[in-house]
Amino acid sequence: MSKVDLLGRRNFIKGVGAAAGVAVAAPVLAVSEKATDVSWDKEVEVLIIGSGFAGLAAAIEATRKGAKDVHIFEKMPYFGGNSAINGGLFAAPGTPMQQQEGVKDSVEQMVADQLKSGRGIADEELLRHVASHAVEALQMTLDAGAEYHPYLQQLGGHSVARTYQTAVSCGAGITQPLYKECQRIGVKTHNRSKFEGFVLGKDGRVEGVKMRQGYYFGEEDSGKLVYIKSKRGVLMATGGFAQNIGLRMAQDPTLTHEVGCTNTPGATGEGMLEMFRLGAVPVHLAHIQSGPWASPDEGGFGYVSNYSIFNFPHSIAINRMTGKRFMNEIADRKTRADAELACRDAKGEPLPPILITSYKDSKQHPNTAKVLKYNVGWKFDSLEALAKHFEVPLKPLKAQIEEYNRYVNSGEDKQFGKNMTKAKDKYIEAPFTVVRLWPKVHYCQGGVQVNTKAEVKDSLTGKPVAGLYAAGEVCGGIHGVSRLGSCSIPECMVMGMTAARSMMQA
Amino acid sequence: MSKVDLLGRRNFIKGVGAAAGVAVAAPVLAVSEKATDVSWDKEVEVLIIGSGFAGLAAAIEATRKGAKDVHIFEKMPYFGGNSAINGGLFAAPGTPMQQQEGVKDSVEQMVADQLKSGRGIADEELLRHVASHAVEALQMTLDAGAEYHPYLQQLGGHSVARTYQTAVSCGAGITQPLYKECQRIGVKTHNRSKFEGFVLGKDGRVEGVKMRQGYYFGEEDSGKLVYIKSKRGVLMATGGFAQNIGLRMAQDPTLTHEVGCTNTPGATGEGMLEMFRLGAVPVHLAHIQSGPWASPDEGGFGYVSNYSIFNFPHSIAINRMTGKRFMNEIADRKTRADAELACRDAKGEPLPPILITSYKDSKQHPNTAKVLKYNVGWKFDSLEALAKHFEVPLKPLKAQIEEYNRYVNSGEDKQFGKNMTKAKDKYIEAPFTVVRLWPKVHYCQGGVQVNTKAEVKDSLTGKPVAGLYAAGEVCGGIHGVSRLGSCSIPECMVMGMTAARSMMQA
Repeated sequence: MSKVDLLGRRNFIKGVGAAAGVAVAAPVLAVSEKATDVSWDKEVEVLIIGSGFAGLAAAIEATRKGAKDVHIFEKMPYFGGNSAINGGLFAAPGTPMQQQEGVKDSVEQMVADQLKSGRGIADEELLRHVASHAVEALQMTLDAGAEYHPYLQQLGGHSVARTYQTAVSCGAGITQPLYKECQRIGVKTHNRSKFEGFVLGKDGRVEGVKMRQGYYFGEEDSGKLVYIKSKRGVLMATGGFAQNIGLRMAQDPTLTHEVGCTNTPGATGEGMLEMFRLGAVPVHLAHIQSGPWASPDEGGFGYVSNYSIFNFPHSIAINRMTGKRFMNEIADRKTRADAELACRDAKGEPLPPILITSYKDSKQHPNTAKVLKYNVGWKFDSLEALAKHFEVPLKPLKAQIEEYNRYVNSGEDKQFGKNMTKAKDKYIEAPFTVVRLWPKVHYCQGGVQVNTKAEVKDSLTGKPVAGLYAAGEVCGGIHGVSRLGSCSIPECMVMGMTAARSMMQA
Repeated sequence: MSKVDLLGRRNFIKGVGAAAGVAVAAPVLAVSEKATDVSWDKEVEVLIIGSGFAGLAAAIEATRKGAKDVHIFEKMPYFGGNSAINGGLFAAPGTPMQQQEGVKDSVEQMVADQLKSGRGIADEELLRHVASHAVEALQMTLDAGAEYHPYLQQLGGHSVARTYQTAVSCGAGITQPLYKECQRIGVKTHNRSKFEGFVLGKDGRVEGVKMRQGYYFGEEDSGKLVYIKSKRGVLMATGGFAQNIGLRMAQDPTLTHEVGCTNTPGATGEGMLEMFRLGAVPVHLAHIQSGPWASPDEGGFGYVSNYSIFNFPHSIAINRMTGKRFMNEIADRKTRADAELACRDAKGEPLPPILITSYKDSKQHPNTAKVLKYNVGWKFDSLEALAKHFEVPLKPLKAQIEEYNRYVNSGEDKQFGKNMTKAKDKYIEAPFTVVRLWPKVHYCQGGVQVNTKAEVKDSLTGKPVAGLYAAGEVCGGIHGVSRLGSCSIPECMVMGMTAARSMMQA
């Protein structure tokens, strides 16, 4: 029987991204095929697409629940996806470290912080589901051997310190232990394996997938097509689309290829697009988050991002035109990114603001040495030298620092209402370390709609698509307009674990 | 050969909307079928789905360009769609009435106003395309016999007066003349005809559609299925999804069935959802506009909406808790809707603000008599009586009116920067007419991505889907976060005309 190919094979020369003039992988996907029209090359028990936090957590959880034949497929040559290069920040309420540090917190408080940042359109039920299971997910990483800094951080938009960070200040501090755990318990992992479409049973159930194995990223004809059937369904843990220039520009025309991006090149979103073709509900694609902690002086997430995330609570961000602060340095990401983008010179051209930190405080973070070494941060012995270097008016800058130091003393920021708890006794004084700030595209709040079982809703029937699950950044709606920092890892892991439980119960 | 039905026929009991507990039409659509698998019942030259502004304008334009066999299919029993009950407001730059009134305007100025309201993510190219052809579209309505009030209005967010309004203050003042014109020139119109899916050629071209004829809205099995082939392609002019409760709640959980809506029951968005299944790019679905001119005292668009749109320039909106103004009465729709929603009593419950107008000015609009007759507006001879009726603190209210009247005199609003041109000499004084304000869901900025040829982009190839066109509210992205009032009719008509030209050239 011949292969069904409703839309025909197009000349797959250029993808959405390429249409914007940027070389990205041209997506090569057909629409869904019928199970009766394909001959299966292989059958597995649990089929997971994507090897980031969500995929890895799902594989481990499925195995714990009794699955014997779990497979992870990853299109890139390396495992870990975009998760491996994120900041390694993990928020959870009610952790042992919070107890040690005397921080009072709860699931409801974390949900309330996230709802605020979501600006009224976050999915409260999903947020509560994730926050309720965050400690459990954190435990999974610890069991797998992940190591964390011995202190909590209070990130922008969080009302208390509740964020763990991996000792390597990077998501790889979690994905690598989870990957090793997968190996240990017998999960089969396949790299260079690109998802190319769903195969459906006659009742509409997702029975399996078409996969291009031996795939080289960017060479769309590379490798060999195989059909893989899955007994318990398919989990799409395929991540966001921050690197799909055409799609992100469709949502926000200002996010051209000239705008920096913290994501891996593989974050192009074909898995999500294919789910829309199956009937998944697109939610919040317009809400694309830029990281306010990034530097224009280095590529991707770089060294500055974690440096500034750590230092924001006891630093001041300065508009170089005025010499004054222009934002609460620990406001939520969208608030800060918007404030930074408004920093312009007299002609309206971007003028990246600077983040000034006392060297004595900044050097507590391991990235400070790297930031200085690679010339993406600078050290100054005097305010005069600093002001001269960045062409900041000295007098207002000096007055601003004196004013801010009074807030450090009083514990009350009368300019922007910043929570000064983590700034206690940390006066801004020479010598200083300074980095430049400019937002980079970081995270897609939008994606397919899922429920608290990680099931994907059909846009016409309103019911879950049988055999299909999704977890992680490929999903949309949970965070609303703006996701709080350190809330992605718990979401990815909890929803990955949730998908595994749903698959094992179905 | 048997019919292809990849997803199988589900038990079509409940749609997305119904899942939210509200009785709406359960969508009954299959995924696309192959032309080789169907037998055509009929072949037409131009096939248009939807009979609002876009569909009607397209039919007339296609005929003008030489089409001999143009068909419009409408799922409801009546023609005109949601367009027939909109406000009948038509913005265009460089019109005869602007010349008469001495208003300087240009395409670029209109585009600039819209870009501002779009908050950085509007589609400038599409906006310019529409503004450039708006006068042409206005002319089409005049040629068909549409009649307009003999004055221009300056609506919220517009920098000048550039808005015509039909003499009946309603979109039917345009759809009815256009419909009659269609009849006159031989366009075939079919009501009770529901689109149920695309039929594709083997090269992926949209060859035709599956249509349920003799359909009764809400009875999904009613009527008879037919396959209709189209020589020049299919235009989807199927409108927005403001009445699809499930889908709008997926984007904004606060837009429950308890929130009012100005749209016809048919605005459920299946046409858009079906295009997503074909691979159209979803854009800006999260941006759903609520009309700030609506009243909680009547259903739908009602009488108050046009009353207040006309009166805002020379009226004051008052927070009943404070007795003070709380917004620029002619700010863009989103700004005002957000400001109104923030009007709450001491317990945080909604407290709809009031719009106070001098009776002498309000009575210039024909709806004033109706508003008073149907008790959705009230007349007061004194401020004391007004304040008592609405439980507004009298002293600050009195002071506010005195202050505002000074702005009327000086021409400068020092509170909210309102453009006072249209308020000249219009002091707020007794007797007063008053209505209550509360936003209602009105318009979906989101939809499928189109280009300036009204072609629909494929999310994977980035190329237009052959044989498929879309126009009107079903499209997304053009207006960005917030559409300016009176900019929908020109968009619908220009893009409908554009689609017709593309079809006739293809």
